[in-house]
Amino acid sequence: MTRKIIIDTDPGQDDAVAILLALASPEEIEVLGVVSVAGNVPLWRTTENARKIVELAGKTSVPVFAGCARPMRRQPVTAEHVHGETGLNGIDLPSPSVPQQAQHGVDFIIETVLAHADKEITLCTLGPLTNIAMALIKAPEIALKIREIVSMGGAYFEVGNITPAAEFNIYVDPEAAAVVLESGVPVTLLPLDVTHQVLNTHERLARIASLGNRCGTAVAALLSFSERFDLEKYGWTGAPLHDPNVIAYLLDATLYEGRHINVAIETGSALTQGMTVADFWRVTKRPANCNYIRNVDVERFYALLIERLAQLP
Amino acid sequence: MTRKIIIDTDPGQDDAVAILLALASPEEIEVLGVVSVAGNVPLWRTTENARKIVELAGKTSVPVFAGCARPMRRQPVTAEHVHGETGLNGIDLPSPSVPQQAQHGVDFIIETVLAHADKEITLCTLGPLTNIAMALIKAPEIALKIREIVSMGGAYFEVGNITPAAEFNIYVDPEAAAVVLESGVPVTLLPLDVTHQVLNTHERLARIASLGNRCGTAVAALLSFSERFDLEKYGWTGAPLHDPNVIAYLLDATLYEGRHINVAIETGSALTQGMTVADFWRVTKRPANCNYIRNVDVERFYALLIERLAQLP
Amino acid sequence: MTRKIIIDTDPGQDDAVAILLALASPEEIEVLGVVSVAGNVPLWRTTENARKIVELAGKTSVPVFAGCARPMRRQPVTAEHVHGETGLNGIDLPSPSVPQQAQHGVDFIIETVLAHADKEITLCTLGPLTNIAMALIKAPEIALKIREIVSMGGAYFEVGNITPAAEFNIYVDPEAAAVVLESGVPVTLLPLDVTHQVLNTHERLARIASLGNRCGTAVAALLSFSERFDLEKYGWTGAPLHDPNVIAYLLDATLYEGRHINVAIETGSALTQGMTVADFWRVTKRPANCNYIRNVDVERFYALLIERLAQLP
Amino acid sequence: MTRKIIIDTDPGQDDAVAILLALASPEEIEVLGVVSVAGNVPLWRTTENARKIVELAGKTSVPVFAGCARPMRRQPVTAEHVHGETGLNGIDLPSPSVPQQAQHGVDFIIETVLAHADKEITLCTLGPLTNIAMALIKAPEIALKIREIVSMGGAYFEVGNITPAAEFNIYVDPEAAAVVLESGVPVTLLPLDVTHQVLNTHERLARIASLGNRCGTAVAALLSFSERFDLEKYGWTGAPLHDPNVIAYLLDATLYEGRHINVAIETGSALTQGMTVADFWRVTKRPANCNYIRNVDVERFYALLIERLAQLP
Repeated sequence: MTRKIIIDTDPGQDDAVAILLALASPEEIEVLGVVSVAGNVPLWRTTENARKIVELAGKTSVPVFAGCARPMRRQPVTAEHVHGETGLNGIDLPSPSVPQQAQHGVDFIIETVLAHADKEITLCTLGPLTNIAMALIKAPEIALKIREIVSMGGAYFEVGNITPAAEFNIYVDPEAAAVVLESGVPVTLLPLDVTHQVLNTHERLARIASLGNRCGTAVAALLSFSERFDLEKYGWTGAPLHDPNVIAYLLDATLYEGRHINVAIETGSALTQGMTVADFWRVTKRPANCNYIRNVDVERFYALLIERLAQLP
Repeated sequence: MTRKIIIDTDPGQDDAVAILLALASPEEIEVLGVVSVAGNVPLWRTTENARKIVELAGKTSVPVFAGCARPMRRQPVTAEHVHGETGLNGIDLPSPSVPQQAQHGVDFIIETVLAHADKEITLCTLGPLTNIAMALIKAPEIALKIREIVSMGGAYFEVGNITPAAEFNIYVDPEAAAVVLESGVPVTLLPLDVTHQVLNTHERLARIASLGNRCGTAVAALLSFSERFDLEKYGWTGAPLHDPNVIAYLLDATLYEGRHINVAIETGSALTQGMTVADFWRVTKRPANCNYIRNVDVERFYALLIERLAQLP
Repeated sequence: MTRKIIIDTDPGQDDAVAILLALASPEEIEVLGVVSVAGNVPLWRTTENARKIVELAGKTSVPVFAGCARPMRRQPVTAEHVHGETGLNGIDLPSPSVPQQAQHGVDFIIETVLAHADKEITLCTLGPLTNIAMALIKAPEIALKIREIVSMGGAYFEVGNITPAAEFNIYVDPEAAAVVLESGVPVTLLPLDVTHQVLNTHERLARIASLGNRCGTAVAALLSFSERFDLEKYGWTGAPLHDPNVIAYLLDATLYEGRHINVAIETGSALTQGMTVADFWRVTKRPANCNYIRNVDVERFYALLIERLAQLP
Repeated sequence: MTRKIIIDTDPGQDDAVAILLALASPEEIEVLGVVSVAGNVPLWRTTENARKIVELAGKTSVPVFAGCARPMRRQPVTAEHVHGETGLNGIDLPSPSVPQQAQHGVDFIIETVLAHADKEITLCTLGPLTNIAMALIKAPEIALKIREIVSMGGAYFEVGNITPAAEFNIYVDPEAAAVVLESGVPVTLLPLDVTHQVLNTHERLARIASLGNRCGTAVAALLSFSERFDLEKYGWTGAPLHDPNVIAYLLDATLYEGRHINVAIETGSALTQGMTVADFWRVTKRPANCNYIRNVDVERFYALLIERLAQLP
């Protein structure tokens, strides 16, 4: 049976690859809608980017909604230094025909969850958790109905990227992350600890480029652009690939291994704002609230990604 | 010309008096709707109480909406130790015929502001600022359209009531208060500094009781109940009257004097959570974001209140 | 029987008046030593100022020690905008013959307490609490031997002076204040709440000036200088007189009334750093650790001050 | 030329091994004194343990001083769950003849630094940084005279041990760590990131045990005791060896590689208290204040340790 999901996202090159991976897997995943959020770039861009990617995949029936233009408590922070000015630097997609839906993304999430059976809808988040938290605050009754929230975000052993203590998605809206982790909804977190194992080596990018279809070509171009920043910073042989792990986890959870632990979010200190304090060694009494993914089978991940991208136009 | 307002409220006895004062003043104030929020008592009670009060006033055409059932970032905190279990202890009103509207209170606020001219709508808040902040996050474009937010909340010289450092409305949802004060919308704050000057002495309660109409009788009964707590705590000759100052300020701003200063909200520390750090002496460089009310002409306030309550059934 | 005290101080005009008041009262108070601390002005100045004041009083046998040049955890903050560049602006005293003792002020405190009987020594503090906290950390065994710590510092209803939330002495070294209040030593705090009642009106300054002795003339000149700042800020009829209240409290505790309550110090938040969170209304379960002085008989205070200053040369 | 050091320590089994390593290397290191601090166990025990270890090494002329019995701002936290009740569980040493010196450890540090040439004294710290910070606050003039502070403490990629965010030595007295890192003294930090590479495998412990001298036998017994805790927690093939890295770094810095970066200490948040926020990837503008050691040549480390332990009785 297909799994019904909503993708909440701030594309972003790696968000784009994640969306494509989901849309390439209709046997397993039904994408009910894509909701944009402010994050890597401002909301108007993430919304437009989401529309472009849905169109690139040829899945123009998937509705795209705009969510929140700002974090809950903080001023917006963006990451053009990583993603380029459009967020999709590396390719130049045409203005999309796929429209932005009139409904607010937060309301689409609420209505969709309420309109389906208990534990039917999975929320996949690729950016700051603003929309999800806003939905949980506006309509707390959805908490019991959501099947799972699967999120790219956080870091423990890899600690941080936007600051020494915090990963970008959590840093941008730490209050939202705290609301999600305290909601009681089952959460699976795919942190830098795992995404820093998934490196876009030249060989892997070449395999994607050689697919020959327009989506494969676009993915190779997108990832070739965004890698500059991390290659310089870390000196690795490839830049890490973040967001597609969320979709890969849904497609094949056996690729990953994690631990059910407590993750608390730092919201009080400027120095450590947005840190995902993961009780990985279970030294506190805080109850487990999270499936914290620690490792991935990288070869099988890329095999899956490339096989699926090949299904797209 | 009448001033169009939305009342956002968590009744509570003094909220009830504020609502009645507004509904008693149709020449100056048009109440477009009443929105409930979790605060003094849980949301289902504040919603029901709002409906009961509108009905008590005989203004059954004023729509009542339910807003948020919880603060943005924190667990709910209530104040039954002050207000009694129902929030309206002191009177026993019948089940109201005024319905709860289907629309969410946050959306009513957004739609109403957007449907009116720039600077036409005033938001009057008598409880935690959750609904207002949620509206500002969900639809930031309303910030430039709102005329003013007039709020009962905060304390500086009177410091706190729910904790030594914080007043209840701000303490319950400090993140929401911070969002409101950082929104750029003109804010007038009526803190404990002013409401602690407005004391329900026996003589004043007697004047209200002697009005003889059902609303006057109800107000006297409500305030006689809720005064217990403060009388014991402070040892004053009357309990302070908080929320009606918001409406009185709209009716006659000359009753009050304040200062345009910066008010910052403490959200990082458990010890001082929710403190309204008012730069009353202008010792920081933080820009003014608030008309902070410091004094009230108490005698004229009660004269106004009693005159208006007399207009109600 | 005289009360044996050590004065810990950062003179400062009002510190100078406090020292003079103590030295003018040999029947009730024996000053075993004066210890300087960084505060209103840097340590080398507060040390020199302490020596000058002891000399001005003609009590050259009272030893003066230099304490800590910096707060425990923070960078130093000074207040030349209030006290002038020397800290004693308003008068020009000659270079003192009273020497600075070789021993560190912290060690003088420790050794003096240990060399006397239990509960024999009172520490009077007029500046940041650095030296006292350092002594308590270096030699925790003194805690049970100290009779009392009587401190000018903090604010609750008057909230703050150096920031909207904090009084200068506590703000400068909040960690030290927290150590003192958590030490178990009996603490009496004389906060802005009480010192803002003690106003140097023109009439009072004139009475001091008309004493005609050199110390009275110096006090009038000192207080006439330092009042500028507060008169402008508050618009009052006289500037508040802070530190002498510590000595007046020792001379006649019946001048004051206070409450045994808990006072906690904010050390975690930049916004509210150094706030003395006084549980004046006893709304928390935190145990009383402080005699928090709330009111003073101002007329009797000035009568005492002037009578004593007249005893000096 | 030998390097003159003071060892500041809270023994603890691994502290004991570090002290022995230093005392076994008189050609390179002159131990001017050992100063105890509260940490793994209370001060009276760490002082006694330091005396016992000096005696075990047969270096009874090395003076032992007691330092601070408590952290600067916090209540003491100890780690008997790791080290056993005495701190030296695993061996049973006789009551030592080496005396505790009368001078306070903080004063010994200050006097020793001031009595030597500029940049002559190295402070080696194996426990909480209380004594060093207290010395820097009491006598700030020592900062320019200290050659280097080499400390076992902190964690970044290995994050924490006593809490999910903090290593024990820093957690216990984070204010002290902040004072040290902000002092301008050159600091080399040996964090869990490096000590978690140094594992007491059975083979290595066997090599130490087989040395046959009383010190080798004692070290093997000590490390066999303390490993229980970490083996259970981490499931590794050997427990990490922490403190001796400080001495090994002095003996042969080529064993280690690190990075000059900024390390900031979290002191404001309970959740992340004591975290050493290491700007390892230089993503902030905070200036470098620390040589942060990241890697060690483990085999050469053990070769050095075992060779030196063999020199002892």
